[in-house]
Amino acid sequence: MEPAFFPRIAVVGVGLLGGSLGLAARQRKLCREVIGVGRSRPALEEALRLEAVDQVSTDLAEGVADADLIILCTPVGHILDTLPQVLAAAKPGAIVTDVGSTKSAIVRAGEETATRLGKLFVGSHPMAGSEKSGVRYAKPDLFEESTCFVTKTTQTDPLAFSSVCRFWMALETRLVLCRPERHDRLVALVSHLPHMVAVALVQAVESLGEDKNLIRGIIGNGFRDTTRIAHGSADMWEDICAQNNGEIANVRKAFDDAVARVFDSIQNQDPALKAMLQNASEYRGFLDNH
Amino acid sequence: MEPAFFPRIAVVGVGLLGGSLGLAARQRKLCREVIGVGRSRPALEEALRLEAVDQVSTDLAEGVADADLIILCTPVGHILDTLPQVLAAAKPGAIVTDVGSTKSAIVRAGEETATRLGKLFVGSHPMAGSEKSGVRYAKPDLFEESTCFVTKTTQTDPLAFSSVCRFWMALETRLVLCRPERHDRLVALVSHLPHMVAVALVQAVESLGEDKNLIRGIIGNGFRDTTRIAHGSADMWEDICAQNNGEIANVRKAFDDAVARVFDSIQNQDPALKAMLQNASEYRGFLDNH
Repeated sequence: MEPAFFPRIAVVGVGLLGGSLGLAARQRKLCREVIGVGRSRPALEEALRLEAVDQVSTDLAEGVADADLIILCTPVGHILDTLPQVLAAAKPGAIVTDVGSTKSAIVRAGEETATRLGKLFVGSHPMAGSEKSGVRYAKPDLFEESTCFVTKTTQTDPLAFSSVCRFWMALETRLVLCRPERHDRLVALVSHLPHMVAVALVQAVESLGEDKNLIRGIIGNGFRDTTRIAHGSADMWEDICAQNNGEIANVRKAFDDAVARVFDSIQNQDPALKAMLQNASEYRGFLDNH
Repeated sequence: MEPAFFPRIAVVGVGLLGGSLGLAARQRKLCREVIGVGRSRPALEEALRLEAVDQVSTDLAEGVADADLIILCTPVGHILDTLPQVLAAAKPGAIVTDVGSTKSAIVRAGEETATRLGKLFVGSHPMAGSEKSGVRYAKPDLFEESTCFVTKTTQTDPLAFSSVCRFWMALETRLVLCRPERHDRLVALVSHLPHMVAVALVQAVESLGEDKNLIRGIIGNGFRDTTRIAHGSADMWEDICAQNNGEIANVRKAFDDAVARVFDSIQNQDPALKAMLQNASEYRGFLDNH
């Protein structure tokens, strides 16, 4: 299989993900140049200084017009808003993809608009990143060993799909190929649910009115790990929740049931608790073995 | 203030905590020798080989009889069971303490028995450890920078209390001094609640019946961090839950309310969600700043 190569790659949104994509694509020579497109001049200048991009533009249509691969790296709400404009400005044969954490709404809009305009769109979601944001945290190996979803529907162009898959494989991600709806169900479970549970844990601690400095003094690694992701971007997560609230409601039901089982068995001193603890310990141990 | 020094320290239970205490006390010369007491001959031999202890004994009464400081490092249920025997065997003037994760029941039993026998007991809880267990993971710096509770009641002997505090300070823990009931309330919040929530998260994921290998392939750092502690010892946590179920029920209520607030606002697309996400992000960020 030929390695992925796109003469020009445009990255729309040069934050942690966009910046890391630029660094990775340049370092691995997957392109001749990377154009960073964004609204914030200081962020674009920082991206240039960090050599994450070769050129920058604050004009969306102009920035993407000459690119062979356009990757939308803005928050999910913004991806939906800019898709029509980006597809309209993309040159014939250029492939548009994204890194959004939800896929159903984005892929539906992207593929419908692409079909109508004779352009190409394929949905992606590399599960990389952290609670940090901004191009200053960008690093070329951010995607290595991470999972990357690429979505396929009956409307997806097979050659564009294959090119996008080869691009993410060149970054050493583990590809998972599925329908957008299946993606949204899986990430609701392994990403959105844990995030919201971490938020609820922090809220619970705060609601009991203990002194913040005392809490800071007594928390250990358990609390730190369990709630780390709650220190994420509220804007980003508001968008994700809005776009995936149906699937989040489904997994919430499963979580509520599990909480009831675990805490009821504690309160009732039910011997079933031990089996639950053992079972969770084994399952969690399994997830760490590669 | 004089540094803590006890000619002989007996560690009952040579697992991760007991082994680390032996290593730390020997390295910092807080004693002339450490006696490891336990039921498992292989664990005791490993502790000797790792130089966590100088001597070993499988006889509880004999092992602790000559010690000036006796530290109970077995699971919390076992601490309660052995307290009377240990206090009876302790020589006059020896101080008995423990590392149990719950304090009300242990301190009540320990101080009552000590008073009756003319012996000394002070409750401790160093919040160190991990999801790993066993003396092979012991390390002399396990307690450094960790929080250590020492409990005080109207029955606590002031000199013994001061000696135990100086011992933990010599290991560079951050001391928190409070009543046993206050300890149990605080650890229910920052330790027992997150553990049970992590268990419930793993249970929720498993309950949806997705393929385990697929789940392993798609989880990211968020899910890993949030559920890491669920991979702990079921025996240990069963004991903790049994001894602290009243306080766990209290914090469960706060958590249930927080879960309802967060997930209802997602389902209802309530603008209040954004404020909750921001608030949790700020609070969690505060907890990381030292």
